[in-house]
Amino acid sequence: MSADDKTQSSANAMWGGRFERGPDAIMQAINASIGFDQRLYAQDIAGSRAHAAMLAAQGILTDKDAEAIREGLLTVLSEIEAGNFVFRVEQEDIHMAVESRLTEIIGEAGKRLHTGRSRNDQVAVDFRLWVRDQCDAAINGITALMRAFVAQAEQGADWVMPGFTHLQTAQPVTWGHHMMAYVEMLARDRSRFEDARRRMNECPLGAAALAGTSFPIDRHATAAALGFDRPTANSLDSVSDRDFALEFLSASSICAMHLSRFAEELVIWSSAQFRFVRLSDKWTTGSSIMPQKKNPDAAELLRAKLGRIMGATVALFTVMKGLPLTYSKDMQEDKEQVFDAADTLMLGLAAMTGMVSDMQAMTENLRAAAASGFSTATDLADWLVRELGLPFREAHHVTGTLVGMAEKRGCDLPELTLEDMQSVYADIRADVFDVLGVENSVNSRQSYGGTSPVQVRAQIARWKQHLG
Amino acid sequence: MSADDKTQSSANAMWGGRFERGPDAIMQAINASIGFDQRLYAQDIAGSRAHAAMLAAQGILTDKDAEAIREGLLTVLSEIEAGNFVFRVEQEDIHMAVESRLTEIIGEAGKRLHTGRSRNDQVAVDFRLWVRDQCDAAINGITALMRAFVAQAEQGADWVMPGFTHLQTAQPVTWGHHMMAYVEMLARDRSRFEDARRRMNECPLGAAALAGTSFPIDRHATAAALGFDRPTANSLDSVSDRDFALEFLSASSICAMHLSRFAEELVIWSSAQFRFVRLSDKWTTGSSIMPQKKNPDAAELLRAKLGRIMGATVALFTVMKGLPLTYSKDMQEDKEQVFDAADTLMLGLAAMTGMVSDMQAMTENLRAAAASGFSTATDLADWLVRELGLPFREAHHVTGTLVGMAEKRGCDLPELTLEDMQSVYADIRADVFDVLGVENSVNSRQSYGGTSPVQVRAQIARWKQHLG
Amino acid sequence: MSADDKTQSSANAMWGGRFERGPDAIMQAINASIGFDQRLYAQDIAGSRAHAAMLAAQGILTDKDAEAIREGLLTVLSEIEAGNFVFRVEQEDIHMAVESRLTEIIGEAGKRLHTGRSRNDQVAVDFRLWVRDQCDAAINGITALMRAFVAQAEQGADWVMPGFTHLQTAQPVTWGHHMMAYVEMLARDRSRFEDARRRMNECPLGAAALAGTSFPIDRHATAAALGFDRPTANSLDSVSDRDFALEFLSASSICAMHLSRFAEELVIWSSAQFRFVRLSDKWTTGSSIMPQKKNPDAAELLRAKLGRIMGATVALFTVMKGLPLTYSKDMQEDKEQVFDAADTLMLGLAAMTGMVSDMQAMTENLRAAAASGFSTATDLADWLVRELGLPFREAHHVTGTLVGMAEKRGCDLPELTLEDMQSVYADIRADVFDVLGVENSVNSRQSYGGTSPVQVRAQIARWKQHLG
Amino acid sequence: MSADDKTQSSANAMWGGRFERGPDAIMQAINASIGFDQRLYAQDIAGSRAHAAMLAAQGILTDKDAEAIREGLLTVLSEIEAGNFVFRVEQEDIHMAVESRLTEIIGEAGKRLHTGRSRNDQVAVDFRLWVRDQCDAAINGITALMRAFVAQAEQGADWVMPGFTHLQTAQPVTWGHHMMAYVEMLARDRSRFEDARRRMNECPLGAAALAGTSFPIDRHATAAALGFDRPTANSLDSVSDRDFALEFLSASSICAMHLSRFAEELVIWSSAQFRFVRLSDKWTTGSSIMPQKKNPDAAELLRAKLGRIMGATVALFTVMKGLPLTYSKDMQEDKEQVFDAADTLMLGLAAMTGMVSDMQAMTENLRAAAASGFSTATDLADWLVRELGLPFREAHHVTGTLVGMAEKRGCDLPELTLEDMQSVYADIRADVFDVLGVENSVNSRQSYGGTSPVQVRAQIARWKQHLG
Repeated sequence: MSADDKTQSSANAMWGGRFERGPDAIMQAINASIGFDQRLYAQDIAGSRAHAAMLAAQGILTDKDAEAIREGLLTVLSEIEAGNFVFRVEQEDIHMAVESRLTEIIGEAGKRLHTGRSRNDQVAVDFRLWVRDQCDAAINGITALMRAFVAQAEQGADWVMPGFTHLQTAQPVTWGHHMMAYVEMLARDRSRFEDARRRMNECPLGAAALAGTSFPIDRHATAAALGFDRPTANSLDSVSDRDFALEFLSASSICAMHLSRFAEELVIWSSAQFRFVRLSDKWTTGSSIMPQKKNPDAAELLRAKLGRIMGATVALFTVMKGLPLTYSKDMQEDKEQVFDAADTLMLGLAAMTGMVSDMQAMTENLRAAAASGFSTATDLADWLVRELGLPFREAHHVTGTLVGMAEKRGCDLPELTLEDMQSVYADIRADVFDVLGVENSVNSRQSYGGTSPVQVRAQIARWKQHLG
Repeated sequence: MSADDKTQSSANAMWGGRFERGPDAIMQAINASIGFDQRLYAQDIAGSRAHAAMLAAQGILTDKDAEAIREGLLTVLSEIEAGNFVFRVEQEDIHMAVESRLTEIIGEAGKRLHTGRSRNDQVAVDFRLWVRDQCDAAINGITALMRAFVAQAEQGADWVMPGFTHLQTAQPVTWGHHMMAYVEMLARDRSRFEDARRRMNECPLGAAALAGTSFPIDRHATAAALGFDRPTANSLDSVSDRDFALEFLSASSICAMHLSRFAEELVIWSSAQFRFVRLSDKWTTGSSIMPQKKNPDAAELLRAKLGRIMGATVALFTVMKGLPLTYSKDMQEDKEQVFDAADTLMLGLAAMTGMVSDMQAMTENLRAAAASGFSTATDLADWLVRELGLPFREAHHVTGTLVGMAEKRGCDLPELTLEDMQSVYADIRADVFDVLGVENSVNSRQSYGGTSPVQVRAQIARWKQHLG
Repeated sequence: MSADDKTQSSANAMWGGRFERGPDAIMQAINASIGFDQRLYAQDIAGSRAHAAMLAAQGILTDKDAEAIREGLLTVLSEIEAGNFVFRVEQEDIHMAVESRLTEIIGEAGKRLHTGRSRNDQVAVDFRLWVRDQCDAAINGITALMRAFVAQAEQGADWVMPGFTHLQTAQPVTWGHHMMAYVEMLARDRSRFEDARRRMNECPLGAAALAGTSFPIDRHATAAALGFDRPTANSLDSVSDRDFALEFLSASSICAMHLSRFAEELVIWSSAQFRFVRLSDKWTTGSSIMPQKKNPDAAELLRAKLGRIMGATVALFTVMKGLPLTYSKDMQEDKEQVFDAADTLMLGLAAMTGMVSDMQAMTENLRAAAASGFSTATDLADWLVRELGLPFREAHHVTGTLVGMAEKRGCDLPELTLEDMQSVYADIRADVFDVLGVENSVNSRQSYGGTSPVQVRAQIARWKQHLG
Repeated sequence: MSADDKTQSSANAMWGGRFERGPDAIMQAINASIGFDQRLYAQDIAGSRAHAAMLAAQGILTDKDAEAIREGLLTVLSEIEAGNFVFRVEQEDIHMAVESRLTEIIGEAGKRLHTGRSRNDQVAVDFRLWVRDQCDAAINGITALMRAFVAQAEQGADWVMPGFTHLQTAQPVTWGHHMMAYVEMLARDRSRFEDARRRMNECPLGAAALAGTSFPIDRHATAAALGFDRPTANSLDSVSDRDFALEFLSASSICAMHLSRFAEELVIWSSAQFRFVRLSDKWTTGSSIMPQKKNPDAAELLRAKLGRIMGATVALFTVMKGLPLTYSKDMQEDKEQVFDAADTLMLGLAAMTGMVSDMQAMTENLRAAAASGFSTATDLADWLVRELGLPFREAHHVTGTLVGMAEKRGCDLPELTLEDMQSVYADIRADVFDVLGVENSVNSRQSYGGTSPVQVRAQIARWKQHLG
């Protein structure tokens, strides 16, 4: 494509006063953000309404102009929401699009709206409002997923399953305990979004291009009108700061990492070899060639989505690296990354909530798996310490020898005889068999936060109260 | 949003034989790829045409069915290209969409097309064809940019400018030399895409779901028909391999890194403090509030685009991490990342080609900058070695002392007197001043690949011949 | 290298009860963490001391054993701190190394220490204590840097310099204002580390391997002894959680991004073309060949360090992706990444604090740059709005035309005559020239957070009070 | 730590001619690379030897000086290799360390070595030589691993196992086929390192600081002496290029991704639920608390190492983003990342080779798993197409219905009666049962690259010949 013959015939009406020619078509394609930032229309209009009301209150605009602007903006809003608004690439971005349409509708007064502000603080306030909303959406989505996990936990507070380390059977645990582990992770995610929201809740509007303005604006008024805690304290920082986006992305990455872990578990658990869980038809698909397949697609996709969100995070960090103050056009790359990551996170949370709500634990398989693999070896070692006074390290060694004996015989620990046991350590008594059952094992883990149903139910109760 | 009430009423017609209910609406949103993989329609149809022709040649399809399929596929192709094709989310992906429309058009024969293949090898071949095309597009885009740099180099093979290290004036170099540095980088980029293209040019079609097929297909025939060098050699690998996408992304990241470096130079060079270059109005924009601004937006955006491409690269690597063989649904995340990275790279190359072609070196400023900052200090040191036989390390020390003297006087090296020089090192002679001029300096760098116009012109000639 | 002949002759004494042979030498190289986790020795010993004291208080250990352990651990601590401790790869990790040395020193009692805990909760508590310390170090390092910026701001609250957008002169701002922008960024960084610290301040000790323990331990006691707010609430989560490391890395990446921005400014500002700032010899280096060079190496390295910290962040996220609960050996990759990122951040903060403290603004160059480039065009536009009642968009257009006129004449805005101005817009009056001076411009920006010295001094005062 | 009191008393002897004071201690810590680049000592000395020999051949050095330098460098080399060389942070880097020691040993002649070169081209040639060696090491390591996979494949070319998609049983495949899939991946890895090696094999020596030199050096001679194909063609590019490192890292990331996939398979396959494979004691470890555990630590670590290598890749890309030409100190961050990634890759390849060589397939479990889960449903569908002429889509539907029937009865497909089958589709004949056995299924996949033992053995033979 030859660049030459694609040049637009006229310069941009907003800033083109001294430009002799318009941008190249490729330039327009690479430069215009209207294709994606139209998504900020509601935030842009809300910001303009707050700005206009403040200008009037400060006597910078007449009340009549302010009223015309207010009504005009509502008209623009309804046009966009009705799908009647034509976005054109020549308008470059949502700010220009709204303002130029406003001016078409109300005339002269529209041209007075931009007094005491700039696109730099406009985009900063619009985007910040959007990200703030996404923090709220994330908090809600996480809370719903926490509730789904708590419900699963409540159902199976005492269902025994194998607890794994290294994907090897380690010790018996309870289904409820495993579910509640995710509640803890999600609770941290939620508090991260709450912290991020609080930190970003300062209003950049009125920073103007970068230096503030000589008009007697009232930044505290616009901040309050838009639900911010306060105005930002440094106008240079206000227009060059994208911390709120980076922090949102970082918190989203951690949350997506949590989702990827449970997703991996679902994929493994629904394999023919594990059969720990049955996913509903609503979250699985078939094969175009293999009629018997029931694939855990949703789980696989959720496992993958961490990549997408991390990719967005890396992208924006890379963009921000080494940018001198204040605004540079590089920063226009912020929005698509955050839009995509936020959409991915919200959809992922909803999908996981659906899957968790629908999944069915196959309790017999869980219990059988928990009882095999010498899973109560630690209980045996602890018994030796507690009852016979062995130092832990020696108890561990005795137990290891017994496990080796059982493995050679192809049996499990409770199937060894007392004589077998005594041949390894003479003082072992018959009541050792009490601790080798999985229910006994699980019930014995009464330490705070441990896997015994009593402890798990205490945590469920705490969270149910907290989640309302 | 409650997941329950959004369930689709019927299962997918293609794979739903044993499913009792259809997917959740959220599931459909997260699972369907038709929204983005419709972009592969031409590749999908080409693959199906090659497959059908081969099936007929092997006697697996009748010639009549094959002909019906061929014509039907051409009809589907023209419907899509005319914009008359309705993509529906229930079709899940482009493969289903094309096949089900084909069957609507030609009936029964359409249902025979999927013999001896699967969606797994279909998507592998479609996506590979698409990425292969993008390698060609990258090679072309890079070549165009190389030509633009060569043209700039030719214009200014002997224009003197400062050569920087650490953004400090180091030694005088030539404009042509600087431009040709990018030609070398881009040549490496080009050869990386050539290598990637060669490596990916194996055809996965016929791997079927994962294990190959019992139908007597001819994979060499379909490979040849689609322009591949050979069929892939292992069917499990064929459907689980996304190396070609990762290698494309990695090569794109390196290329984007090169673009980011010249973009940074353009941003710095077009600052009021440097004024080394004048960008055309076609690649700059103005400000909504500051009427005097002429911002190098395109350069800034190109600097940022590395972030976007790296983000896509990180995303896909993360997705692929730890996936057991063979196909997992995670891999559906491959396409959007590669689509976005490829679009970004191609647009970036085109924009950079336009900017480089249009930019004007401000030769007086370049020369003045080259002559200041003691830029010929190395020439002085080399003269001391060459003419007076000083060991380099001593020559370096003498020169350092003279630079210190000049700096204190606020003058440059050539403005010191012979007496000044001799006060530091007595043997210095008047002909030392010959090497202190920037033109002399530049002309003296005759080592292979050096900055002297003679060397630069030799490189330009070599590249002009190579680029045709 | 053949793996076979490298096998160690004996299995690990701690866990090797049922292993017939020891690990391969390559296995030992890849598996042992003692080479890096020895850095956690103080945390490990502190954790063991708290654990032993609690065991005694609960009657699980005798007081005599507990006392022997306490004294033994202090001996081990002093051996390590004196450099007399030999770390051996066969010990695998710091936990084994400390415990086996303890047992050498105190005998039998040492083997009782591991009662009611596991390496899984030990490593979780050790590493969490270390990261918590690093949060404190980051907070201190950031605070020191904030003070350095505030000191610079105070010195030059009214020094005029160009405010840039797109690295183009936009409007005059003050040095103090620019410095205080970084104070705002750093304050957000600081609060991020404070939040992270608070969130991670829960004690995993007592989670044991994963399920809790049947010993009647008191997790609240060990939590309190180690300065934690509370014990963690779910033992599965306790041993598989690395959120605290990821959050530390994410916060570090944002902070490093801020450092990279000022580093970039320093590199540009210390170029011969800008000369905005003079860096001290303490933070610059020379060249081995070019005697005149004074390179801003420290600034360049700080610009680069974001890469290092982001790399660590991406590494750990990738490691954690898709790990099923609970502990997997993959998680051993956490420490080196966090160690390196933390060291890099702390060194970077110290270096930046040194550079900022030492740097000298070249105030004449700053002012001259601020006054050129039509930097008060916005002031002219605002005057037209305020004084003549033009709508902003028209004022912007008039100003653009005047800038074009000035540019063609090669003069700046204040050098146009009143007649020139009136030829473009007839109503312009002579008092317009009042707003065209940079000091007037800067002083007029009285909006909250704006660049006027009055506003800047208010922010300095606020921060000085806050920073103490 | 106060920066002030840590300043070194004297400036660097090499470049400090005009510096009034030495660097800050923190500066030295952040600036010196000697701590890590000492690893390049052999490359540095080789480069210097080639340079000195060339200088003598060109008459720039006397033969006597050249001989003294040659012998002196050999002395330095042997001192370093004997561990007698003291690296000091004041020397900054390996180049300074070697040269200053050389000058201590041979005096004056040592100071002449730096004629016609600079640290910028020295570091470029040293590092490139090192990375080139690592390409060779990677090629060797990959080849050894390929041989290990081929050996496994040969053993079990006809062992039947389940082929998975979505971790669900899809179709029976052979162990040999699965092993050979990794041979294909590794072959691509190997060719990537070969391409990278070829592309980087150009010699930057003689580019000097950035502009070339006025000394009549012979760059073709030094290139040849160091085993390069040719000298680099542009001196600016020569000192600012780090493509070779980025390409090495990218290729390493793809290779590590492959390792992570097999590592994940090993972790899953060695779980109690799968029991597909038995890992040797050499590559597994026990637990400090659970005596029965045999954890696949090496596999887990290899799964994680992708994170480490990707982290290094992201780090260096981020560092290189937006660096203006030519050398910037940022680029010093290149080495540690590449060192760590290369070490990780080589260790990972060796560990995987050991594990693959030692692992034992549990063939009975593999076969049993292959025979369950309706794994021959596709064979049934294909039979319907082939024998009864059903269109594939209809055959797929019939098969799905039969799978549903079998699932409800809790049996597998071959356990349905002919009557059951005919109740769904009347024309089905008794010979359908021939295709429902897993051996028949596997043997039927005769398409090129398919899973039948005949095809697999053909691929094994091809690779054995190729690998020698």
